[in-house]
Amino acid sequence: MAMNDNLNVVVFVGGVGGAKLALGLQAVVPPENLTVVVNTGDDFWHYGLRICPDIDTVLYTLSGRVNREFGWGVADDSTVTLDALKTLDENPWFLLGDKDIATHLVRTSRLRAGESLTGIVRRLAQAMGIEATILPMTDAEVPTMVTTEEHGTLEFQEYFVKHRWQPTVTELTYQNMENAEMTEAVATALSNADMVLIGPSNPLLSIAPILAVPGMREALMARDIPRVAVTPIVEGDALKGPAAKLMRELGYEVSPQAVADFYGDVITGFVSDVRDTALKPHGYDVVSFDTIMKSDADKSRLAGEILRWVTKRKEKTL
Amino acid sequence: MAMNDNLNVVVFVGGVGGAKLALGLQAVVPPENLTVVVNTGDDFWHYGLRICPDIDTVLYTLSGRVNREFGWGVADDSTVTLDALKTLDENPWFLLGDKDIATHLVRTSRLRAGESLTGIVRRLAQAMGIEATILPMTDAEVPTMVTTEEHGTLEFQEYFVKHRWQPTVTELTYQNMENAEMTEAVATALSNADMVLIGPSNPLLSIAPILAVPGMREALMARDIPRVAVTPIVEGDALKGPAAKLMRELGYEVSPQAVADFYGDVITGFVSDVRDTALKPHGYDVVSFDTIMKSDADKSRLAGEILRWVTKRKEKTL
Repeated sequence: MAMNDNLNVVVFVGGVGGAKLALGLQAVVPPENLTVVVNTGDDFWHYGLRICPDIDTVLYTLSGRVNREFGWGVADDSTVTLDALKTLDENPWFLLGDKDIATHLVRTSRLRAGESLTGIVRRLAQAMGIEATILPMTDAEVPTMVTTEEHGTLEFQEYFVKHRWQPTVTELTYQNMENAEMTEAVATALSNADMVLIGPSNPLLSIAPILAVPGMREALMARDIPRVAVTPIVEGDALKGPAAKLMRELGYEVSPQAVADFYGDVITGFVSDVRDTALKPHGYDVVSFDTIMKSDADKSRLAGEILRWVTKRKEKTL
Repeated sequence: MAMNDNLNVVVFVGGVGGAKLALGLQAVVPPENLTVVVNTGDDFWHYGLRICPDIDTVLYTLSGRVNREFGWGVADDSTVTLDALKTLDENPWFLLGDKDIATHLVRTSRLRAGESLTGIVRRLAQAMGIEATILPMTDAEVPTMVTTEEHGTLEFQEYFVKHRWQPTVTELTYQNMENAEMTEAVATALSNADMVLIGPSNPLLSIAPILAVPGMREALMARDIPRVAVTPIVEGDALKGPAAKLMRELGYEVSPQAVADFYGDVITGFVSDVRDTALKPHGYDVVSFDTIMKSDADKSRLAGEILRWVTKRKEKTL
């Protein structure tokens, strides 16, 4: 089988880090063969708008609209509405760009009209010219709740943005998950997948919610295909965001080994960074690449390296 | 009694025309004595936002924020969100300015949180520095539905903005009105009123919905105080909007006489325009002023003339 041709790739991601890998994959996988399954545990209601930060980061990144300085939000956006909110004695602690608000308005109005989040994301992706498939992990509202020492239990964005992930976390819960269902779109993507990748996203905040969707773990394990995670931890720290701090607070070692072990039998392979020492694999294969993605070239290179490695292993076992 | 001092003035208004008179009244009546009761039959949901066009026109006019060219919307507003909506293959037929959206976000989120429209408008008015009282006619959703020959039954803004009030109207209905209640704030304002004015607003689209709120007409008629309407029809036409066309389509003569007769025993006085010939009053007094309000001076002048006339008549009857 020629590299990447007709290989269906499903990748699980959260926000910025995962979106970067997805952009790399978009450069090396035909769009009809690429499905990005996105965490929705961060989604929340704010000023009456339904906001899906991770989905939007993926939409904006794959469509080339993203603010490259931040890694999220729309490039060259303004904040006229946000500034006007402040003149109305409001305290809008979440950044709402004017262009970004258009995305929230489309999503909110269509949700209110009864459309599924899956259908809405499909519509937004099409409107933005994205040919790959982007799927929310579920259509249900499953807010990740963060219990902290200082402020009690917070909605994720309150913890992450309002309190800048500074409180000490004692517990994470994925609320309403027992009532969530895996969507048909995700089930079909997994059935047709030739490999599943797990992006270099926060294992506890981005990937664990996806794996917690009822049926998701079973659907993954039922497939005899490569399932490969990419480390979000390099040289004992997270490249971005609270992954390291959070792992420490919840009693994990901050290392690629701890991430790989956290995924356990969900994965058959693990990509660590060349900067780190070798892992002791427990039932999964390990490879090291340069996982730091600064330029678009870095992203395609890493995506290509992972695909080649997975494909070669797959051929060996055939 | 000295002119205007301690006289409580309540004025019923719709959008632009009524807001102009309210601005004139604000210039000559102490704010603690002025209550503006606003039509909410035009309110609608659009892109998940609760939009109250008449209330916003009054808020923006009384706070000096209004776009003076249009008579509605916020001055110097931009349309970044609206333009972004168009790039998402949307057809946003209602003008959403970026500053204006902030007002809609505050209202929508607070409604979703269970606050009353009355409380939200009070909050917005305070934030905008308005000292007079602005009250929605009711807290219930009572959409005015417009039955047309060409397009069947439309929500008001669809008729008014999307179809630019061009369809032929065969019927107006004030939906859900049987479930609406007069608010305590409106009831108190009417109890304390020394006069009630009806602005030069569309009688059928702006004032009739206010009068249709259960209990409103009775509360008005129960008060032995001057109740004076200002003509929206001058020289056989409306100064703005569909009043003349609509009156014609619904079988009314397009004249100040027809407007006064439409209000009937709700009013004790009627202000027609100096450009028109004298009315034949049926149980109400009539006076003629220059009712065309272009400058702010025009607005205060007309407001002052009306108040002086009403006060003089009141004194005569004492």
